[in-house]
Amino acid sequence: MEIARSEGWFSAPSIYVENIRDRDSAYHVKSEEVLESLEAVCRPKEVVCRFSDERDLEAFRRADILITGALDRLVISNEAENLKLIQYIGAGVEGYTPLDWLPPTVTLTNASGVHAAKAGEFGLMATMMLHERVPWIATNQRERSWQRQLRGLAAGRNVTIYGVGALGGAIAERLQAVGFRITGVRRSGEPHPHVDRMVTPDRFLDELPATDILILTCPLTPETRGLIGAAAIAALPKGASLLNIARAGIIDHEALVASLENGHLSGAILDVFDKEPLPTESQLWGVPNLMIFPHISSSAPEGYIDRCLAILVDNIERSKLGRPMRNRVDPTAGY
Amino acid sequence: MEIARSEGWFSAPSIYVENIRDRDSAYHVKSEEVLESLEAVCRPKEVVCRFSDERDLEAFRRADILITGALDRLVISNEAENLKLIQYIGAGVEGYTPLDWLPPTVTLTNASGVHAAKAGEFGLMATMMLHERVPWIATNQRERSWQRQLRGLAAGRNVTIYGVGALGGAIAERLQAVGFRITGVRRSGEPHPHVDRMVTPDRFLDELPATDILILTCPLTPETRGLIGAAAIAALPKGASLLNIARAGIIDHEALVASLENGHLSGAILDVFDKEPLPTESQLWGVPNLMIFPHISSSAPEGYIDRCLAILVDNIERSKLGRPMRNRVDPTAGY
Repeated sequence: MEIARSEGWFSAPSIYVENIRDRDSAYHVKSEEVLESLEAVCRPKEVVCRFSDERDLEAFRRADILITGALDRLVISNEAENLKLIQYIGAGVEGYTPLDWLPPTVTLTNASGVHAAKAGEFGLMATMMLHERVPWIATNQRERSWQRQLRGLAAGRNVTIYGVGALGGAIAERLQAVGFRITGVRRSGEPHPHVDRMVTPDRFLDELPATDILILTCPLTPETRGLIGAAAIAALPKGASLLNIARAGIIDHEALVASLENGHLSGAILDVFDKEPLPTESQLWGVPNLMIFPHISSSAPEGYIDRCLAILVDNIERSKLGRPMRNRVDPTAGY
Repeated sequence: MEIARSEGWFSAPSIYVENIRDRDSAYHVKSEEVLESLEAVCRPKEVVCRFSDERDLEAFRRADILITGALDRLVISNEAENLKLIQYIGAGVEGYTPLDWLPPTVTLTNASGVHAAKAGEFGLMATMMLHERVPWIATNQRERSWQRQLRGLAAGRNVTIYGVGALGGAIAERLQAVGFRITGVRRSGEPHPHVDRMVTPDRFLDELPATDILILTCPLTPETRGLIGAAAIAALPKGASLLNIARAGIIDHEALVASLENGHLSGAILDVFDKEPLPTESQLWGVPNLMIFPHISSSAPEGYIDRCLAILVDNIERSKLGRPMRNRVDPTAGY
């Protein structure tokens, strides 16, 4: 027995799982899955699974660990008397910021990285599509118009990835293998094995004139909200294109639509929207050279919950060893 | 001087270049390019460049080497008295078969392989798009309909590539890197480094039930004409999809449209058509889950002519050394 048994919260914890009823059932966590994953690492005392609309408040109050697809701020701050750890079944928690409602004794961890393999594939596909001007070709098809423009090789084109975390890193790896030249933007400015040049956000605008394709994979924070507005778009060269798989709020959509209509940008692919499903009456559906994806870029249902639970298992083991947790959300930064 | 000078036709040859006026100028061969490429290898006696509609028949008759984007059967068989070698600026010569008009003393070489890098990239993009059901998503966008279906990873899916030549091989290499499992079909049945399993055409139908995505990259021959008809499509599993970057005649389009309309196939991407440009009135423009590409899958204009001329240079060197030529079209097989 290499790991000493401890009498901390991670020994025989009470676990409460809150599922969201209207979500795809591939994202519902089942008691058996939790037991199977956690039995060896912490022998749960109990696992209670409920939909959020039929919460078992008694069990909720007893819980040491909460596994949930949505954060009910009021209930967590008022009722979760025993809570130590929240494992959130998703990556971005910007819908719950500022995180001042989070009791200081509770650690919040997210599922960042669970999406990386899928996002890497999706990012590769979408970036190749933008290079090949597929949004323009799809627009032409709507108009039954054969317009042929031969494109050179993707290899050698410049891609800038804003946000080189798990998603951005996975996309960079895929794109570098095809021969794209990758510039990354991240706060730390730390190098990444699949990014040719890394810069800090204050240098972002300087990178745009040499960017063929701009990819957004950053969290939505006060710093990134509205980042891609008229000024940033104008700084991109004519014919550049844009992929957003992060959050809609990063883009000023009015400026984006104008640049697609006047031809400054050659195309865009959006996978995230302020309101989802995107309403039928939204003007975005019909904007030329814009492709609408229904928020699928980083969700692969097969094994999703397994991968989330693997983060929790890892963090319980880390806690036993007194090591810092993985995927801990910094309450100040908001991700 | 390692290569002995010979007094064969490849020493100081007369060269005639016939360009096609209505083709993109990136595909026009210029005298300077020919001289620059061939000077060191064969010191051309003359290089005459003309559009086919203003042919210099005298120079044509003198030519040892013809570089051309179209084959004028009658003129070649009747007038090319001195001709030894035709370098065709394109891959498929099925528009000129049977090749019984080709004088037996003339070798015809094509530009097969020149398209490989581009086709590899395009094939990667289109296959990822079919896996992700992008044709369905584009159809939904036309109808302003948000429909979300999460797809698993592309890695591990089964792709069958019919025709593993330069194009099919380049695509196989790209797809294998992403984790697709590749079955190849080719006449020789010879293994290929990026194909997991290779079968001969007589086994093709047996492979279809396990095929997620079928890719056509074969030449159009009597054997492949109409190959993908109702029977082959029915042999594919429900939800399979199809990419054609070969020739339109390989597919029975009526059967394809039926399978897209009844949902047996989840999508298709076509880059080649019986008549190009595809006429405005073609029903194909509006078929659900079908994406129309304007024949761009394997043409990258930058450096195209350079790559064609490199084949010619290589073949002149081979001829000097008495070695067999590369890219020689077999007059019996037609490719």
